[in-house]
Amino acid sequence: MSFQQAPHKLLLIPGPIEVSDPVLLANAHPSMSHVSPAFAPVFSSALKRLRKVLYTETAQPFIIAGSGTLGWDLVAANLIEAGEKALVLNSGYFGDSFADCLETYGAKVTQIGAPVGGRPSLEEVEAALKKDKYKVLTFTHVDTSTGVLSDAESIGKLVQRVSPETLVILDGVCSVASEEIRQDDWNIDVVVGASQKGLSAPPGLSITSVSKKALTVLDNRKTPVASYFASYKRWLPIMQSYEAGAPGYFATPPVNLIYALDESLRQITEGPVSLEQRFKLHKEASQKFKAAALELGFKQVAVNPEDGANGMTALYLPEGIAPPAIIGALGARDIVIAGGLHKDIKAKYIRFGHMGYSVAGEGRKDVDTLIAALQSAFAEVTASR
Amino acid sequence: MSFQQAPHKLLLIPGPIEVSDPVLLANAHPSMSHVSPAFAPVFSSALKRLRKVLYTETAQPFIIAGSGTLGWDLVAANLIEAGEKALVLNSGYFGDSFADCLETYGAKVTQIGAPVGGRPSLEEVEAALKKDKYKVLTFTHVDTSTGVLSDAESIGKLVQRVSPETLVILDGVCSVASEEIRQDDWNIDVVVGASQKGLSAPPGLSITSVSKKALTVLDNRKTPVASYFASYKRWLPIMQSYEAGAPGYFATPPVNLIYALDESLRQITEGPVSLEQRFKLHKEASQKFKAAALELGFKQVAVNPEDGANGMTALYLPEGIAPPAIIGALGARDIVIAGGLHKDIKAKYIRFGHMGYSVAGEGRKDVDTLIAALQSAFAEVTASR
Repeated sequence: MSFQQAPHKLLLIPGPIEVSDPVLLANAHPSMSHVSPAFAPVFSSALKRLRKVLYTETAQPFIIAGSGTLGWDLVAANLIEAGEKALVLNSGYFGDSFADCLETYGAKVTQIGAPVGGRPSLEEVEAALKKDKYKVLTFTHVDTSTGVLSDAESIGKLVQRVSPETLVILDGVCSVASEEIRQDDWNIDVVVGASQKGLSAPPGLSITSVSKKALTVLDNRKTPVASYFASYKRWLPIMQSYEAGAPGYFATPPVNLIYALDESLRQITEGPVSLEQRFKLHKEASQKFKAAALELGFKQVAVNPEDGANGMTALYLPEGIAPPAIIGALGARDIVIAGGLHKDIKAKYIRFGHMGYSVAGEGRKDVDTLIAALQSAFAEVTASR
Repeated sequence: MSFQQAPHKLLLIPGPIEVSDPVLLANAHPSMSHVSPAFAPVFSSALKRLRKVLYTETAQPFIIAGSGTLGWDLVAANLIEAGEKALVLNSGYFGDSFADCLETYGAKVTQIGAPVGGRPSLEEVEAALKKDKYKVLTFTHVDTSTGVLSDAESIGKLVQRVSPETLVILDGVCSVASEEIRQDDWNIDVVVGASQKGLSAPPGLSITSVSKKALTVLDNRKTPVASYFASYKRWLPIMQSYEAGAPGYFATPPVNLIYALDESLRQITEGPVSLEQRFKLHKEASQKFKAAALELGFKQVAVNPEDGANGMTALYLPEGIAPPAIIGALGARDIVIAGGLHKDIKAKYIRFGHMGYSVAGEGRKDVDTLIAALQSAFAEVTASR
């Protein structure tokens, strides 16, 4: 069965992103029983392919109806108990929110911040870990509000060296499948993700991957987990059962979205582009786009240009141009980009997504289209000043 | 754009259920920004149409990525505080689970049970309400494990008379849009629902509707809400904003599923079949199917036949026939039905769904197809004994 999605404006925000026709067709799969012998292998396949994307053999993936945000609840409700300490490395809006979520469950949060567009240094993190004991350390791999990429490998290995009992939580909502994440090698205990960004599927899934060490911590809790839906223990046997090819039941899974995710994961892990090539394509697309934008007079929000994410870019506008002008001019060229999200700089910057299917899909020229449109839009906006 | 879903076995379990081609096409909508001016009116429309289905003008609907189960967390995390009392009317598996969820959040639960296939009597409920003060009373409108329908109107009005400050929580996961629910008139404070049953959309949405009174209780809490994702307060401004036609952001909504839900709600609230006719069609289909099954020697799990749900049927098999035989024979006839779920009678019964698009969709003859297939399957199975 072939299917072609309806004509539409090119969606180049940092998620949701463009998805392929086969992924949308999978999302339009006829209704299936969630306990059907035909559906269980699809769920199994999605779980297994997710492991490949994260280069992990030992961590347990969880695919649950929800959003990236639900992944924070899963971490906060399961892996830390009231009164225990969390160290949050803050590189933007999502660090604040993750801290807020941890505090909702009673964690004592210490944040290491940075000026807008910056990220905490490894030296600051090391000093903090030596000064106090933390149950978990969290960081936003790519903060969607600033486009700043954290050095996941160095953070994971630093914690392993300085405070090996601390669980390392990587918020990868805006990085899974667009930035390299080697969960096992880099000592990452939990990857928190979602379907609508690098994974190139529609939104509606909370996707997390939890190390054996983190699951053991869960076994040794002194107090019960204070959530029902966001309980790893309730979902664990379900994921294990589906992965083994047999259905399980705790709550009805979002069947169609799992068909869609599995199709996208098939393209990511078994398509013509290898995972390694995929990450390289993201880097190339990012450099090309950033160079073109800088040439026009835009400036990265990321203070150190080399800390800019590969799957998205946040850009300050040249003096005298307001976000709506550029967003509108791009909209007139059938391209959708995003306004600002970080409260301190909201009126001064715009955000672009260049990830997943848009940069690694066969025959996609989205970044070239974007660059040409941005040049033309910029010329129009500056001419009319 | 027209779209026809792939040929498949007819899905007649008590959810997920068959959905229409336009609903699946909506689920395959091209990716859209969740804060797009084109998407906000769709979200708005879904919220408004939901009010119509529940006959409410004052309650606030919430549409969140999740499942029916997440709706229990929303109730337990927001409307009751640790140590407060909940009265759970138990008519099957889902009563046990809702009680479990409430206890996870620290509620003190008293259950009124009934033998399998029964439901607590109004006299028992009245006596319990007079004996003690409860913050919330919960009941399963249709327990999917037994097919027993509770008398929602009488329960709501009884609480209003005897214990007006108690919040009435109707678990309508298996009843919204297949059984009549008049939220305002019947004194129902919260309806907990999901997308994949009577609402005839794919699974992946938690759908709840919360009365003004319940939202006021939330305002007067002594302790903070102990969940981040399942917090009504965090979602309330988002729902209000989208309903007014402007986007809001707390967590990325499941955009495609909301397109699909709105399309199904359009069919339900503005299609050729009125809501009143829809409920009548469910009653007729249910009576027709139950009569045909009883004639073959099946017996309703519902102890009082008049307490059987209109959108589904749970049936004990005639002596000597095991569930897999009938399920297999129907499967060979391209019809998918469900096995047992209630632990006490699991090996003795089977379950059928006859709701939503299957009974109210234009030109659908699913119940006739089911009856003919059941007769034929039954003849085959009994002949081979």
